[in-house]
Amino acid sequence: MKIAVLGTGMVGKTIATRLIHLGHHVGLGARSATNEAAATWAAKGGEGASAGTFHDVAAEAEMVFLAVKGDVAEAVLKSAGDGIAGKVVVDITNPLDFSKGMPPTLFVGNDDSLGETLQRAFPTAKIVKTLNIVNADVMVNPSLVPGESSMLMCGDDDGAKQAVGEVLAAFGWTDVIDLGGIAQARATEAYLPLWLRLWGALKTPNFNIKVVR
Amino acid sequence: MKIAVLGTGMVGKTIATRLIHLGHHVGLGARSATNEAAATWAAKGGEGASAGTFHDVAAEAEMVFLAVKGDVAEAVLKSAGDGIAGKVVVDITNPLDFSKGMPPTLFVGNDDSLGETLQRAFPTAKIVKTLNIVNADVMVNPSLVPGESSMLMCGDDDGAKQAVGEVLAAFGWTDVIDLGGIAQARATEAYLPLWLRLWGALKTPNFNIKVVR
Repeated sequence: MKIAVLGTGMVGKTIATRLIHLGHHVGLGARSATNEAAATWAAKGGEGASAGTFHDVAAEAEMVFLAVKGDVAEAVLKSAGDGIAGKVVVDITNPLDFSKGMPPTLFVGNDDSLGETLQRAFPTAKIVKTLNIVNADVMVNPSLVPGESSMLMCGDDDGAKQAVGEVLAAFGWTDVIDLGGIAQARATEAYLPLWLRLWGALKTPNFNIKVVR
Repeated sequence: MKIAVLGTGMVGKTIATRLIHLGHHVGLGARSATNEAAATWAAKGGEGASAGTFHDVAAEAEMVFLAVKGDVAEAVLKSAGDGIAGKVVVDITNPLDFSKGMPPTLFVGNDDSLGETLQRAFPTAKIVKTLNIVNADVMVNPSLVPGESSMLMCGDDDGAKQAVGEVLAAFGWTDVIDLGGIAQARATEAYLPLWLRLWGALKTPNFNIKVVR
């Protein structure tokens, strides 16, 4: 599949590289077509790896991963413009506000979410919120956490969730819980304050929750 | 041990009954000394079970369980007055706001928590936040959830956390994670939006998370 990954940070590159290893064609998107991090990644990524603007990589893709900091998520999708129209957009962002010190708070109240904000702003995109509850390495390789743990997913479009579920399965996720529509993002984003403190208590980011039932 | 349970609802009675079965003396507290639910429970509870006002049961106890709705938590501790001075107070409340429909939102922002609010209001009490992440039956009988799951705890007083940890162990909890001071309550309370939606998705309240690491 042709997949765009928007964001050249650690999370974006980790996802892009994993998708290449799974045999996909991946365009790593940045604000500028000459972004150095994206070009370096594409040069190393071998066949199937390319780099371009947010708009250009999205326009060529069937599925778009949004892997940027929460406070620029909406601006980045706006840059992608009609490149994301009608596309499955995998929203892995969190509305973290670092302005009040550590650990960060959330910049969206608990009666809304960043996932919903993005879906409202880009109504033709099929936003699927997932992967935001673990660190980048665990996102693409859940076996870094011993035993089975759970991945949470939500979104308004069932077909989009099915397509994303197949990618999650290829990453290695065996227990994916579909919470329902994109409004459930207010729950999976609200988990972040706990994730941050568990990270502090456990001294490793390689952990996750298993929903035991 | 002499233990007070403040709150005569389902949660309070479930905890009080379990504590009686574990051999403790339990006073079930209500606003009024003639509360019918408390009197009925005490009559059925047999030896070691009693009923009284919030103040009177707290004054006689070494440990106090706060098992009331979040929006009256502070008022109930105020009623208990000097009955809770210097005592270990197990805060199992959640700041749920039902005024905007279901599922409820939280009435405390993510830069504060109900646990911290109570600790600030009653500085001599040793508040330990725990058990608020599962339903009442699971609180006192974690084996209702198949396999091992985790309990989260936080509070400023290490001795209080140790005492509460012993009660949690008697309930059956084998994986208790101490997140640190009472400020970590903003994380365990922020988990509630997810708990509520998992309950909806799983169609049973008998679930919990295991922190896999």
